[in-house]
Parts: sequence; C-alpha cells; structure tokens
Amino acid sequence: MASNKDLKALFLNCTLKQSPEVSNTEALIKVVAGIMEPLGVECEIVRLVDYKIAFGIESDMGDGDEWPKIYEKIKAADILVPSMPIWMGVRSSPCQLMAERLDGSYRDMDPETGQFPLYNKVVGVIVTGNEDGAHDCCATTLYNFTHYGCTVPPNADCYYVGDAGPGPSYIEVGRGHLYTNRTAQFLAHGTVWMARMLKAHGPIDTNLIKLTEEAQKFSTDTAPAG
Amino acid sequence: MASNKDLKALFLNCTLKQSPEVSNTEALIKVVAGIMEPLGVECEIVRLVDYKIAFGIESDMGDGDEWPKIYEKIKAADILVPSMPIWMGVRSSPCQLMAERLDGSYRDMDPETGQFPLYNKVVGVIVTGNEDGAHDCCATTLYNFTHYGCTVPPNADCYYVGDAGPGPSYIEVGRGHLYTNRTAQFLAHGTVWMARMLKAHGPIDTNLIKLTEEAQKFSTDTAPAG
Amino acid sequence: MASNKDLKALFLNCTLKQSPEVSNTEALIKVVAGIMEPLGVECEIVRLVDYKIAFGIESDMGDGDEWPKIYEKIKAADILVPSMPIWMGVRSSPCQLMAERLDGSYRDMDPETGQFPLYNKVVGVIVTGNEDGAHDCCATTLYNFTHYGCTVPPNADCYYVGDAGPGPSYIEVGRGHLYTNRTAQFLAHGTVWMARMLKAHGPIDTNLIKLTEEAQKFSTDTAPAG
Amino acid sequence: MASNKDLKALFLNCTLKQSPEVSNTEALIKVVAGIMEPLGVECEIVRLVDYKIAFGIESDMGDGDEWPKIYEKIKAADILVPSMPIWMGVRSSPCQLMAERLDGSYRDMDPETGQFPLYNKVVGVIVTGNEDGAHDCCATTLYNFTHYGCTVPPNADCYYVGDAGPGPSYIEVGRGHLYTNRTAQFLAHGTVWMARMLKAHGPIDTNLIKLTEEAQKFSTDTAPAG
Repeated sequence: MASNKDLKALFLNCTLKQSPEVSNTEALIKVVAGIMEPLGVECEIVRLVDYKIAFGIESDMGDGDEWPKIYEKIKAADILVPSMPIWMGVRSSPCQLMAERLDGSYRDMDPETGQFPLYNKVVGVIVTGNEDGAHDCCATTLYNFTHYGCTVPPNADCYYVGDAGPGPSYIEVGRGHLYTNRTAQFLAHGTVWMARMLKAHGPIDTNLIKLTEEAQKFSTDTAPAG
Repeated sequence: MASNKDLKALFLNCTLKQSPEVSNTEALIKVVAGIMEPLGVECEIVRLVDYKIAFGIESDMGDGDEWPKIYEKIKAADILVPSMPIWMGVRSSPCQLMAERLDGSYRDMDPETGQFPLYNKVVGVIVTGNEDGAHDCCATTLYNFTHYGCTVPPNADCYYVGDAGPGPSYIEVGRGHLYTNRTAQFLAHGTVWMARMLKAHGPIDTNLIKLTEEAQKFSTDTAPAG
Repeated sequence: MASNKDLKALFLNCTLKQSPEVSNTEALIKVVAGIMEPLGVECEIVRLVDYKIAFGIESDMGDGDEWPKIYEKIKAADILVPSMPIWMGVRSSPCQLMAERLDGSYRDMDPETGQFPLYNKVVGVIVTGNEDGAHDCCATTLYNFTHYGCTVPPNADCYYVGDAGPGPSYIEVGRGHLYTNRTAQFLAHGTVWMARMLKAHGPIDTNLIKLTEEAQKFSTDTAPAG
Repeated sequence: MASNKDLKALFLNCTLKQSPEVSNTEALIKVVAGIMEPLGVECEIVRLVDYKIAFGIESDMGDGDEWPKIYEKIKAADILVPSMPIWMGVRSSPCQLMAERLDGSYRDMDPETGQFPLYNKVVGVIVTGNEDGAHDCCATTLYNFTHYGCTVPPNADCYYVGDAGPGPSYIEVGRGHLYTNRTAQFLAHGTVWMARMLKAHGPIDTNLIKLTEEAQKFSTDTAPAG
C-alpha cells in the first residue's frame, strides 16, 4: 500500500439536508473514506445542497451558478463516488441534478483525443435509504457515469437499506450493519485498485478512439451478413 | 492490434426466438463481433432459448438442465456481452433467467482467493427494441454483472431503439443506424482494451480481497466519528 | 360487505420454485387472499412454473404451450395480482415471461369497442425479496398492466423486503411483518373497492374509445399553438 | 360530455427550463389539455422551475420556500399530470424534487378518514425525451402517486421519444407524432372518465380505511396457514 497519497477520491453527497444537518449518507461515506485513506487516497466530501446549483445541462449556467466549483473538483479527482439517499424508490433530486449538469461534460471533449473530461476515472456508488430502491439507484448512477467516461470495477457499490416500510436509518442502526460495511471494503479496495491500474496503463488508446469517431461513416455495406 | 486471437468474447443472445428465426439482437451482435474479431478476439454467440434452461438459482438444477453448458462457456470467456430485446420496457425473460442462474456463481467462490468465477472478466451489453427501455436494460444488466465480479469499461453499451410506439426493428432500418453502430465501436474497443489490461495486470490483489472478508468483523468501534 | 362471491381475483405467483416447494410469495398471497375472501371475492392462485409456458409474444405459441390455460383464467378474473420474488433487483423471469405473453392480448381487441381483453379489470401487485428492489418490481408491473387495460387503485402494492444483503425471507420472519401485512390490507380493500366500482360503472364509454381511434388522423393542424 | 367545467386538471411541468424558454414537455401538455378542455376540464399548467422550491420532505420548508403554492394547487385539482423530460434515462430533477416534497402529504392525513390529501384524485403522466427512458419515468411516477392516494386509469401515459442517440425533440418533429398524439387521447379521456367516476362514487369507504389502520395489530396468529 502506498504511504503517500497518490490518488484523489471525491465523494459527492447528494443528501437533501444542508450542512450542518446530520446526513446518513455522509456517515456511510466516512466509513468508505476511512478505508481508502490508509490506502493512499486523499478523500474529499462535497455536499451538493450547500452550493447554489442551477437546473440545466451546461457546465456553467451563469447567474451565480456554483456548479463550476463542483465540476472542477470532479475533473481533478481519480475516483468519483456519487452518494445519495433514496426517496420514493429513486435517487435523490440533487443526484439527478448532478447527472444532468454532467451532460455539459459531453461538450468539453478533448479535441486531440476525442475523450470527455471524465475519461480514465473510476466510479463507485454509495446509497442509503430506509427500506428499498438501492439497486435501482446504484445501477442507474454507475451506468450514467460510464457514459461520461468512467470505469466500474467489480462490486463498486455500497448501500444500506432497512426492511420494508418506514424504519431506522444507517446512523440509527449504529453504523454497524455487517453487509453494508463489508461492501464498503469492496467499494474502497476495488476503486483504488482500478484507479491505480488506469493511472499506470490507461487511458484507452487515442487512435482507437479516433477510429470510433470514424465509425460515423459506418454503413450497411460493412455490416456482417445475417 | 494482435494478429492471433488472445481473447474470447461470449455474446449471450437473450432473444425470445429460437434458431433459426431471425433475431434483431443477433444482427447487432454481429456488428459488434465484426469489430472485435480483427482486434484479436474469438467471438461466440449463444442463443439461450435454444437450450433447455431450468428456472432456479443453482449452477445445475439437474433433470436435464442445460444451463451448465452455458455456464462453462461463461467461465471460459474474457468478455461477456449479455444481449437482449426489450419487452414492456424490461429486459427479456431469458436475460432475467440468465441473471438468476448466475446467482449460483456466488456459491462457486475460489476458496484461496475469495473470488467468484466471473472475477476479472469484462462486461458490455447490447440491447435492441422497438422504441424504449434501453437505458434501464443496460444499467440493470451491467450492474448485475459487476456483482458477479465483472468490470465495466467506459461506454460499454450499444443499443438500438426506434421512436415512441410500434415501429421498425434494427434489421428493418437496414442495420445502418448511425448512433447504434457508432456505439458498437465504443463497446468493442472498450471491452477489448479493458480485457487485455485485466489479463496483464489483474485481478485485484487477493490479500486485499481477504481483507474485505475480514470486514465482517467490522463494527461501530472502528467506524470513523461523525 | 357482500356475503356472496361476486368478484374473482387471480393471483399469478411468479416464484422460481415448482409446487410443492414452499414459496414466500405464496405465503404473502395467502395473507392478501385471506383478507379478500370475506369481502366476497373468490380467490385463485396459479403458480406459473407449474405450467409449460413458451417464450414468445403470441397468445398461443402452439407445440404444447400451456399459456392459454393461464390466459383464460386472466380473462375471467376481475382482479389480477401479479406476485413475484425479486432476483438481482429485478422481477423474476416467470413474471417477465408473463408480461411478454400478455403482449398477445393487444391482438385480441374487441372489434366493437376497440378494447383489449384486460380492460375494466383491476390490478394490484405482491413482491417478496430478501433485501431490495420492490419499488422497481411494483412500478414496472403495475404500469405494464395499465397498458393492457387495467386500473390501479391507491396503495395497490404489498411487499416484503429485509434489510441490505442476504437475510431471512417473509416466511422466516414469521409472516408477522407489520408494514407488509398492513399494506396487504390496503391492497385487498383497494382492489376490491375499485373492482366493484368498475363493474357497476365501467368500462370507459366506447364512443370515447372510438374517438381515440380517430386520433390517428390527429395532426399538427389541430395541435394547440405554443 | 359536460358543457360546464366540473373538473380541474393540473399539469406539473418538470422541465429544466425557466419560462419563457420553449419547453417540449409543455408542447405535449398543451396537446393533452386541448383534448381535456372540451370534455369539461379546467386546465392549469405550472412550471416548477419558475418557483423557488427548497430541497426537503416537509410540506413547507420555510425561508421563502414556494412549494406551498404548488401544493395548494395540487390539493385543489381532480386530475394530476406530472410531466417531465428525461435526462440520462431518468425523470428530471424537478420531477424528483416534487416527488420528495409530496412526502410531506403523508403527514397531512385527515384524522377522520385516515386518508392522505391526494386520495380520490386521478393521475396521468406525460414524458418527452430525445431517445429513451419513457417507460421508467412513467412507471416510477405513476407508482409514486398511487402511494400518495391517486388512481391510475388504463393507458394513463403519453410520451414522445425519438430513436437511439441524440435527435430531434417533440416540437422539432412538428408535434405530429402519431403514436404520441394518439396516447394523448387515451390519457385525456381515461383520466377524465376516472375522475368523474371517483367524484360520483369515491372515495373508498372510510370504515374500510379504518380497518386497514387496525391492521397494525395484525399478527401471525391471524395469517392463513401455508
């Protein structure tokens, strides 16, 4: 394990609660960050609702929009961990807002490589909820980030949900939930391992990416028969 | 690019139609396989409904169950590409059946490494539909396979859907759909690149994985404050 | 409450387990049916995997396909309750198979009324799982059935899920889960109430339905400005 | 058809664009409203991002929160039509924000009837997107509203999506998309029909609702065997 911090992880806390309100999602983030740091990762937590983020799909919507502050942090990180509560079975609105704002990254493509700013980064996901919806939140969010250029290592999700109906949250169960805390280990180790591999051996070869640009000319002529 | 075939890709065609009926999903599989093969990948397509696969969650349900034939092919591949039509907005029943049967792989863990049989493999996904539901099919399926141990490279999905309501399928639009065929390039190049990297530098260090096993003893005592 | 049975409810048990294996989904079905029966509802449970149902989207795929037996029961019922376990966060493959086979009902439209065979029926949903995915299973399945012509009354879902990770199932927790059993009451009373109202006052006026058929001629000429 | 307006429909436009920016979702809302009005329905469109709505789950978050203005309109309507664009395959963040804020309605239960403020209302849904995700948006949103007390009539969704990848929006295709405009008819007629039926014959009997409250005492003692 590296003794110096050669990687940077950014936890994007998409709770509905402004600081300093207690956030269950943040409690679980801290478990994961607590595993990552000794592995040589500098960890930062950003709580999105503490910023004034505009609705929209551009990287800067102007008029005091504070998304650019978040976006700079995102671009500087090696590991991104969108982290969210579930409401009505769906990822929280700040998380969806973030996914929408990242649409702007499609328009920040590197002209030399044809790659988006999130290329060669690793993504993991943290979810907390009272009872249900973690799979959907994880699947959707990880998938969105692969579109932006991120890689998903094995077992890159960590979530807490209680049983059906209203009930205690992650903090209320004492932060000691076995399955949740075990997946925290998987999430931390897997993303760090993958980030180091991508840093050493990635990104995907630029010429191949350029080849994919040429794919726009692809037609039925070149499609295999059948 | 490698001239000899050093990688193996398995396309799991989850169409509802038995061979030799024409399958739109297979048409798109062939586009992707046609890009992979010159990159040094031996490609095989399996149509699940051509096999007699039992409902269940064990690796062999007995009584003539043909899942073990598929499962052996899965374990032998470097790149897995579950490929499916959408019905009622959801991945096809053979695809869900496959996801369920792979639950058995959790019970085939390597006792030395603590890893499931699908560890260190790469997953991509192909979806065809008339109109809608590709995101959900892709997200859910990629996510499921990360639980089984697979890695998802950037832009690992390729899908065709037409506009709202009934309409032409991928073959009927002439296999020439620009966006779909462009993402076929991304899917092929990304999974091959990642599979070579994992073959050279993976899997994740066994000692770390063992550490995560120990995480079962993790308790509130060791959880960071806050 | 009616003393004679004037309504018929069909519970479509989409477990992976053939009879006589014990099914958690069936245990919860029996809770709901036990509430419905004293309200004057004749309840029938069908376990789909006990039938040989072909993959496909026609009402009869031939070659010994037993879907027509299920389909007749569906057409004869007033209340339909698709009931399913969750696997990998998604409704079970027999449930998806059922949704696909019902696609055939679109081709069984009444030529006089323009209505599908499931029109004027009520749908509710039962889900059991170890930990997560109930919202997605409920939402998707209820929505599919509204496309086939069913109405969804308020609080028409009843589910059991445990907390994150592997854990006890509905039967193992003693069938006494408070929230789950309370929603069983909502599901039972709501579907029965709606079914009686639809029987007395439905279906939607045929002339209106015909008007919607004419909507095919609808063009930008008649679209409101703006 | 009624000549006087006896019903009120509220269209909740969850676009990301503030007025007076052109909204595709609003264009489709106007098609549906244009069908409803001659049926005797007073239609109102609210654009959520024109209001300053706080993140949270209470009916009034204070500090200038304008959700109460929307909430009053919601409580006064007979038909609710959440209407939204799709971003990254998921309903827009203002729509998720609305779903979260409606959580507050659970705490506004009528003490006499045990019913939430949205009981006996009807819900339909409108979705616009470039390419994919309508099923998921519709299913999730309709399902959420049944939890709040709404009824979903048959075919209560109307959506426009183009084919795979970036492409023209609903307005750009000339508002003349046949399938979309046909489902607009279904949505309008179905919700109006159901709202009249519920106004005449609903809500569900209060005593039954009270019975479901008693269900909290339900235990394994009263569960059917099996």
